[in-house]
Amino acid sequence: MEKTDVLIVGGSAAGIVAAVTGKSTYPDKDFLVVRKEEQVVVPCGIPYIFGSLDSTEKNLIPDAVLTKKGVNLKTGKVVSVNQEEKICKIDDDTEIGFEKLVFATGSVPHVPKWLKGTDLENVFIIPKDKVYIDKMLTKLGNCHNIIVVGGGFIGVEVSDELNKKGKNVTLIEILPTILRLAFDKELAIEAEKILCARGVHIKTGIGVKEILGDKKVSGVLLNNSEEINADAIVLAMGYRPNISLAQESGLSITEEGFIAADEYMRTHNPDIFAVGDCAEKRNFITRKHSTVMLASTACAEARVAGMNLYKLSTLKTISGTIAIFSTAIGDTGFGAAGLTEEMARQEGFDVVIGTFEGVDRHPGTLPDTHKQFIKLIVARESGVVLGGEVMGGASVGELTNLIGFVIQNRMSVNSILTAQIGTHPLLTAPPTTYPLIKAAEDVVCQVK
Amino acid sequence: MEKTDVLIVGGSAAGIVAAVTGKSTYPDKDFLVVRKEEQVVVPCGIPYIFGSLDSTEKNLIPDAVLTKKGVNLKTGKVVSVNQEEKICKIDDDTEIGFEKLVFATGSVPHVPKWLKGTDLENVFIIPKDKVYIDKMLTKLGNCHNIIVVGGGFIGVEVSDELNKKGKNVTLIEILPTILRLAFDKELAIEAEKILCARGVHIKTGIGVKEILGDKKVSGVLLNNSEEINADAIVLAMGYRPNISLAQESGLSITEEGFIAADEYMRTHNPDIFAVGDCAEKRNFITRKHSTVMLASTACAEARVAGMNLYKLSTLKTISGTIAIFSTAIGDTGFGAAGLTEEMARQEGFDVVIGTFEGVDRHPGTLPDTHKQFIKLIVARESGVVLGGEVMGGASVGELTNLIGFVIQNRMSVNSILTAQIGTHPLLTAPPTTYPLIKAAEDVVCQVK
Repeated sequence: MEKTDVLIVGGSAAGIVAAVTGKSTYPDKDFLVVRKEEQVVVPCGIPYIFGSLDSTEKNLIPDAVLTKKGVNLKTGKVVSVNQEEKICKIDDDTEIGFEKLVFATGSVPHVPKWLKGTDLENVFIIPKDKVYIDKMLTKLGNCHNIIVVGGGFIGVEVSDELNKKGKNVTLIEILPTILRLAFDKELAIEAEKILCARGVHIKTGIGVKEILGDKKVSGVLLNNSEEINADAIVLAMGYRPNISLAQESGLSITEEGFIAADEYMRTHNPDIFAVGDCAEKRNFITRKHSTVMLASTACAEARVAGMNLYKLSTLKTISGTIAIFSTAIGDTGFGAAGLTEEMARQEGFDVVIGTFEGVDRHPGTLPDTHKQFIKLIVARESGVVLGGEVMGGASVGELTNLIGFVIQNRMSVNSILTAQIGTHPLLTAPPTTYPLIKAAEDVVCQVK
Repeated sequence: MEKTDVLIVGGSAAGIVAAVTGKSTYPDKDFLVVRKEEQVVVPCGIPYIFGSLDSTEKNLIPDAVLTKKGVNLKTGKVVSVNQEEKICKIDDDTEIGFEKLVFATGSVPHVPKWLKGTDLENVFIIPKDKVYIDKMLTKLGNCHNIIVVGGGFIGVEVSDELNKKGKNVTLIEILPTILRLAFDKELAIEAEKILCARGVHIKTGIGVKEILGDKKVSGVLLNNSEEINADAIVLAMGYRPNISLAQESGLSITEEGFIAADEYMRTHNPDIFAVGDCAEKRNFITRKHSTVMLASTACAEARVAGMNLYKLSTLKTISGTIAIFSTAIGDTGFGAAGLTEEMARQEGFDVVIGTFEGVDRHPGTLPDTHKQFIKLIVARESGVVLGGEVMGGASVGELTNLIGFVIQNRMSVNSILTAQIGTHPLLTAPPTTYPLIKAAEDVVCQVK
């Protein structure tokens, strides 16, 4: 029987980071990643394979990120875990003993059971699977009319990329706006306008009743009885944690279907950790279970697990998911961190909303200047920032991270008002009207 | 005699922000800005007038930022302040009574007295003065060989912009590298390489002994006896606080030549405030007096003064200058916040340096991907971040602000290691190798 000190099941973002961080924290231990894929795609890059990248080859995580750090790698599927004997069985019938085990089994595309026609030819999902996506790319090449079902980040990004390739794309979202789980209405509507102007047809507030076709897909029937013809359907209806192995191994599973894990990312068995999309998460602010799965959150959890494998550190824990998102449609970036206004109000927070629209360069006459809009969701009682949403240019990703750090540090609007920022004509908003600070000021003016 | 509740002397960034914040905090009070300029230029935008903008007209702060907030405006020079009677005298012989006075008199270009030839024709400084810069622009139009003396931000930016316009530019810096007060050697050398590749001739480690010419400038004589011919010289040798009015009015001046001011930005007279380049500053970390003058710091101070004019708030104070800089040379952005390694060691901190080089998009095969390098300067004892330096693409400005918030919140490398960030292929580094987190990890690995 093979043996390793630490065995990590799953080789995407969370598995890689758990292994690399673990190895760098405990260099004397042997680390082995077991994954079922021959090659691993960059998960967040998948939508861009359909347009900008044009091939899965350009979207691979090289094995060197593991091997050059001294982490061992094995391709195979773990079929069972014996918790007592600390042995994993692989589908090639080998057995591997371990001291510590990390579940990083990720998530799989969700396809509702009630939806008819999902097995027709040219109905696709978006798994993190190079072989599947290669085939899908080839087949989509022959399709012109494509319907994307689901207006979350993946659905929106895939729609925009397919549209870039000259496809006739219709995006269908059952909620009142696209991106609704990340953004309040006003920002989501701006995203819709831009996506629409780029040529994507958008239908919101309407669900898909049935996928139509005979062997091959021919279109969809909507809830309002409308039919739309299509050569292909892409289902982007969310993901669900991949927990079957953990469940079969007897680990506790939460009500929401994640592997139960604490702030050190330990499961109920202290020698077994779970990280990433498959692991239990709590919302940083509401403290409720969260179902938001993000590669960046996964990596934060994986780092925590990696560092706590053999020695717990109270300084190195996950204190809840802040849920920091960003995306870009054309040259407009969108970002959000923490709670939206809608979520905060639903939770029962008494909130004050601060907004400001400025520019992301100064003077605004400089080339490539982009409007920059910030909305802050702030607890009235304490002035602490609960969430923020941003629309702007290419700097929106890091600006959203700045808001993430504001939330993580439980900064109040007063701290933002007196905060120091650096500004530069070509890189940021002006110092006089830096939108984050002005939005904080807007809040302070309302609560006086 | 005219009367106002609050009189602000100076109408650039700090004056504007003090007035606007003050008016929004105390809407019942009358605010009057008195400034000597007919029109005000965006201070940080000045270098870009010489290339990208091509005209001062595109770099003006509109008076509407004051007037639409209900702040009154007067063009004129304040010639004296009577502290006891609370009266300012203007150069048109009018007198204005005030309850509260704010000095926002800024800074003026520094020209060393020992330097011969500064009064020759075509020797220029870079004041925040539209009329001067308009004339300078016209005169520079007829010059081909231009020497810029001083490789700080202004000198570097002006050199790059003049070079863009086809001028033959030589930049002279007496320190071993350009931008040395903001960046450690390794980053400064990268900036030099880029500037050099764009066509600017750079001479470092050599000072200017004398400016040569007869009526009109003909060149410079360097310390090493070398002579360089030039049609024009631009002196970018730093700025000094403009404190003559405050000094004549009897206000206390610090040893470094700034108007003495506390954390509420009050001078020794509690009814008189000073903000921006003319006001005393302390370094956030070393607690020593600082001479770093930045528009963004000025605006933070001005907001603090505006809010504390009539009612002190212990939540709204300036806790020292973090000194957050950023700039761009071509498509490469450079940023720094807090102490450099050199400064930290000189101060006596026992520091650990963490670095990481990654990419600012993911996968790195995406168009416009730029290398991203981060250096963190961390106190060994506490793990608290004392400073950070960044090189990368367009997101560097906000990424530097993120590091600024890390310093301001006195975050440790452990907090960064477990921090949550959001990532997106088109907007940020990958979640697996986000350089800020990897640089923190580099520190942790060294101190184990």
